[in-house]
Amino acid sequence: MFIHTKNVNTHLTEIKDYFKVAISVDCVIFGFDDAELKVLLIESDLKEFKGKWSLLGDIVRPDEDLENAAYRVLQARTGLDDVYMEQVQTFGALNRHPGGRVITVAYYSLVNIEHIELKNLSNELHWHSVKDVQQMEMAFDHRLILDTCLRRLQHQVIEQPVGFNLLPKKFTLRELQNLYEAILDMKLDRRNFRKKFFAMDVLIDLNEEEEEVPHRPAKLYKFNADRYAQQKKKSLGF
Amino acid sequence: MFIHTKNVNTHLTEIKDYFKVAISVDCVIFGFDDAELKVLLIESDLKEFKGKWSLLGDIVRPDEDLENAAYRVLQARTGLDDVYMEQVQTFGALNRHPGGRVITVAYYSLVNIEHIELKNLSNELHWHSVKDVQQMEMAFDHRLILDTCLRRLQHQVIEQPVGFNLLPKKFTLRELQNLYEAILDMKLDRRNFRKKFFAMDVLIDLNEEEEEVPHRPAKLYKFNADRYAQQKKKSLGF
Repeated sequence: MFIHTKNVNTHLTEIKDYFKVAISVDCVIFGFDDAELKVLLIESDLKEFKGKWSLLGDIVRPDEDLENAAYRVLQARTGLDDVYMEQVQTFGALNRHPGGRVITVAYYSLVNIEHIELKNLSNELHWHSVKDVQQMEMAFDHRLILDTCLRRLQHQVIEQPVGFNLLPKKFTLRELQNLYEAILDMKLDRRNFRKKFFAMDVLIDLNEEEEEVPHRPAKLYKFNADRYAQQKKKSLGF
Repeated sequence: MFIHTKNVNTHLTEIKDYFKVAISVDCVIFGFDDAELKVLLIESDLKEFKGKWSLLGDIVRPDEDLENAAYRVLQARTGLDDVYMEQVQTFGALNRHPGGRVITVAYYSLVNIEHIELKNLSNELHWHSVKDVQQMEMAFDHRLILDTCLRRLQHQVIEQPVGFNLLPKKFTLRELQNLYEAILDMKLDRRNFRKKFFAMDVLIDLNEEEEEVPHRPAKLYKFNADRYAQQKKKSLGF
């Protein structure tokens, strides 16, 4: 069967008939609090999804690009604009939105919960433990979006030190391990974990200890971004 | 400043005003031929991009989802439908398309060039060495899309054996190394490469040798998909 190029590469004149889709961004905002991985959700205000939880998102405006839209949503909800954000996947199933064909571009963000002051925001916004959310009903295909972003985070955290975005600038090895266990949802062997992390050589020993803790104060570390950047270059030399 | 939820979570009635975008898919179809990584391109048929090369793509129809659209484009152009395909990134810069607001979802595909018969297709379709393309002008933002997909392939090939999709079912270690060198665009040390690959234990020695070659016949291998699946599970145990 001979395929006309016209059927596949749509000419400019034909494109005119197809400007009928809406684009949105949905942000999976992860935070780490007290050994639990959390996600920021809002109660859906659509009657179709009454009582269900929703990711934070919005339609992309005609005068902004995708990343601007995602940062706008983040800023409006958390007051933050300087956070780690990564585009994960675009969801375009036919009936994902009751209002019509809405394609959504999902981003995940990693924030340090302590830095967020939710005082300017409506009171329908809440941090939920990611584990608890697995049991809850969500609006639209947000369960699928959340799971996809969580899997991406789980893969990223093993291959790159993105997890550091979720910790305070100075942290203990216990906190670091709690973070990995919370993200990967598994208990890790303490000695193995420390051995692996030191072998990666991406931590700086600050020669400081925790203060005002009820237990024996542990040493504080921070992430060595420069060392990581150097290593990354080397590893691609296979 | 009090932020109305309405400004951020757009109500159903407001969404109505935003169905004005078109969605397309663009496929970066990689092939490996004779020690070179190649990409399948078409001459752009838009007057704005006369003489420039274009990725294969199309508008997403109202009755199909994103993945179906990508497979449709691939099938129409190459005759193949059983190929490795991965969604990479969505591009939504304001002026990327002269026809209006067109957001494109980019996929990359890995095909074995020997399997593709381009006989049903128009004669504007060509395989180009990825290296040569760096010097060529491309339509739209296809240079950016191609570079993004190439970087994704480079990262993937180090972490997962996706590269096997580009090889024949049975291959020699020389061909495997040629593939990695072509994708990563760097010469690798032969002994180190073989040592690393055997350590990964994802190859099956077929106890066969190449036939009809002018040089000394080398051993043939194939990819051990089961072994890889097992290892993947173990590695996530950190």
